[in-house]
Amino acid sequence: MGKELLNNRFGFELLGRDERSGARRGRITTPHGTVETPVFMPVGTRAAVKSLTPEQVRSAGAGIILANTYHLFLRPGQDIVREAGGLHQFMRWDGPILTDSGGFQVFSLAEMRKITENGVAFRSHIDGSEQVLTPEKSIEVQHSLGADIIMAFDECTAYPASREYTEEALGRTTRWLGRCAAWHEQHGGPERQALFGIMQGGMYPDLRARSAAEITAYDLPGYSIGGLSVGEPKGTMYEILDSCVGLLPENKPRYLMGVGSPDDLFEGIQRGIDMFDCVIPTREARHGKAMTSAGGINIKNAAYERDFAPLDAECDCYTCQNFSRAYLRHLHKAGETLAGALLSIHNIRFLTRTMEQIRGAIEGGSFAELKAEFFRRYYG
Amino acid sequence: MGKELLNNRFGFELLGRDERSGARRGRITTPHGTVETPVFMPVGTRAAVKSLTPEQVRSAGAGIILANTYHLFLRPGQDIVREAGGLHQFMRWDGPILTDSGGFQVFSLAEMRKITENGVAFRSHIDGSEQVLTPEKSIEVQHSLGADIIMAFDECTAYPASREYTEEALGRTTRWLGRCAAWHEQHGGPERQALFGIMQGGMYPDLRARSAAEITAYDLPGYSIGGLSVGEPKGTMYEILDSCVGLLPENKPRYLMGVGSPDDLFEGIQRGIDMFDCVIPTREARHGKAMTSAGGINIKNAAYERDFAPLDAECDCYTCQNFSRAYLRHLHKAGETLAGALLSIHNIRFLTRTMEQIRGAIEGGSFAELKAEFFRRYYG
Repeated sequence: MGKELLNNRFGFELLGRDERSGARRGRITTPHGTVETPVFMPVGTRAAVKSLTPEQVRSAGAGIILANTYHLFLRPGQDIVREAGGLHQFMRWDGPILTDSGGFQVFSLAEMRKITENGVAFRSHIDGSEQVLTPEKSIEVQHSLGADIIMAFDECTAYPASREYTEEALGRTTRWLGRCAAWHEQHGGPERQALFGIMQGGMYPDLRARSAAEITAYDLPGYSIGGLSVGEPKGTMYEILDSCVGLLPENKPRYLMGVGSPDDLFEGIQRGIDMFDCVIPTREARHGKAMTSAGGINIKNAAYERDFAPLDAECDCYTCQNFSRAYLRHLHKAGETLAGALLSIHNIRFLTRTMEQIRGAIEGGSFAELKAEFFRRYYG
Repeated sequence: MGKELLNNRFGFELLGRDERSGARRGRITTPHGTVETPVFMPVGTRAAVKSLTPEQVRSAGAGIILANTYHLFLRPGQDIVREAGGLHQFMRWDGPILTDSGGFQVFSLAEMRKITENGVAFRSHIDGSEQVLTPEKSIEVQHSLGADIIMAFDECTAYPASREYTEEALGRTTRWLGRCAAWHEQHGGPERQALFGIMQGGMYPDLRARSAAEITAYDLPGYSIGGLSVGEPKGTMYEILDSCVGLLPENKPRYLMGVGSPDDLFEGIQRGIDMFDCVIPTREARHGKAMTSAGGINIKNAAYERDFAPLDAECDCYTCQNFSRAYLRHLHKAGETLAGALLSIHNIRFLTRTMEQIRGAIEGGSFAELKAEFFRRYYG
């Protein structure tokens, strides 16, 4: 096994490095276009980035989005998406898509889950129905969805987790990767979709190292780091990243799953991460929270009642080009869903624009300066 | 009083008539552009057509929209909208806007209302605060909002209502119109905004006639028919329209308030109505209901689970050009607000496209044929 998992429709090119940190500048090639890295991917859990049309998502600067296998497996089901012509056609997103494996959601959302070597039996959080996800089933579903990049089925450990349990989960994750890769190859997957392996190992550097060694034994087109940002202190996450990012191959993209707060993006990139996803920009938006050049603001605040300036005078997004804080506050307080949509556009653009600035800074050798300036202004 | 209420920034041109019915083809001129009539106006109650951006509303074929004085009076309040530069600037709608007077909402939404000759005292349905709307206050608020077309403050009678009460309400509505017109003139309103009077009189043809005579004594730029579609049988509404539309001046636009189901649009136009507004397209959309060339459908229906056709193959809207019934059903069942937005775009376009067809049919002398064909296909 190995080389068969790579193909010429998917690639990663390392374009440059920051001399003073681990930050990398790269480019991912997929059947649906290229992705400049480091990249932030908005989340379209149920085949839609919440409240936004594909055009709005694209206008916010997003080039690749993520969808959730767990949710789409339960509803509408893989058959319907496959019959629709796959996720790209179903949701009308013609750029690259990445699907996760359902592993994380089975552990965080499903009820009454039972883990065996075979896979995970659980009850749907939607209707209580009994369901089973195995490594083979996860890849089968992801084949039906047809994303450009797919994830191996893993067992994500929570925080805190005992060393013993973390080691067990890590072992299963490696064995499951073998089954995922085998099913993927046997069903012609590598021709169309790039399978990433996921590193686990919790907060134990030696287990992270073991996981890295085990998953990189498979010559996969990319690797993810799972099991971080699951409740541990940020310092702990950064220490684990310090210990394990360098254990992943230089010539493959590295994806830190479920991470997307501005500070974590900078800290991850500094340590050599290329890809991120997070629901932060859309979830915060629904709660009236906006990320701006001068830090986070809550649009509900009375200070914005008569503030006719845009959310962020430096932002080029549709929302900032058109609407005032006073209007957005009014919409939010009135319960208009348009508030969440407009703030989502802004927050996604804020993160994609920050990534553009980071890519430029890596190219120009000023990543450290950009980071210091960003932290000063954002977290002041 | 009279001529001062007209000005050269607002006009109505009667372009043609259907020889076999009362249907009219016209054009309204406003400071924010022209409106071809008959016209359907989507409702942006709280300074937003629910879940849609102004661009989406416009792309759905809408040229003029309505906003609600009652809601905006309570939240965010007239001062904030005025300081924002008026409703056009606040919500970024650069086309014509019409505001109602708050009269209907005070009677349908507010709590503990107390009607006197002076006006209506009530408690806000939002926070229970004590509020008062008078004819003068309604016009003052509408001056702050700055819509192109504004409405006189009226007392809308429910269905059923006694003759005695209906007559009392009608009398107050006329006297309040006098006060609205006076305040409007005294404050330079006619230069900027066209004030419409509202006919009341419930289901009593002679009271409708009295109301028509009383309000047309004021030479206003347009006239509305209120107090219909308030629970009465459709046949009753059509009979009342038969009795009273012709009592309004030929050379002024006639606006049937709060009406917008497809059958009512045709029946109203046939009787000489030029303008309509209704929350139907957006409210139905949020409940998963779509209007199509072949009638109404409920996207929740299991029949659409694997239906990869658009909502309406004849429709040119963004939703129909991009998304399948199966996808829209999935979004709706998953509770994604995008479903409501996409169905709203379609439903608004369905009504604006129907109006385009009606205007063409009036011009071409085929209104009766279009109506028969529409009813056959839509209502089967």
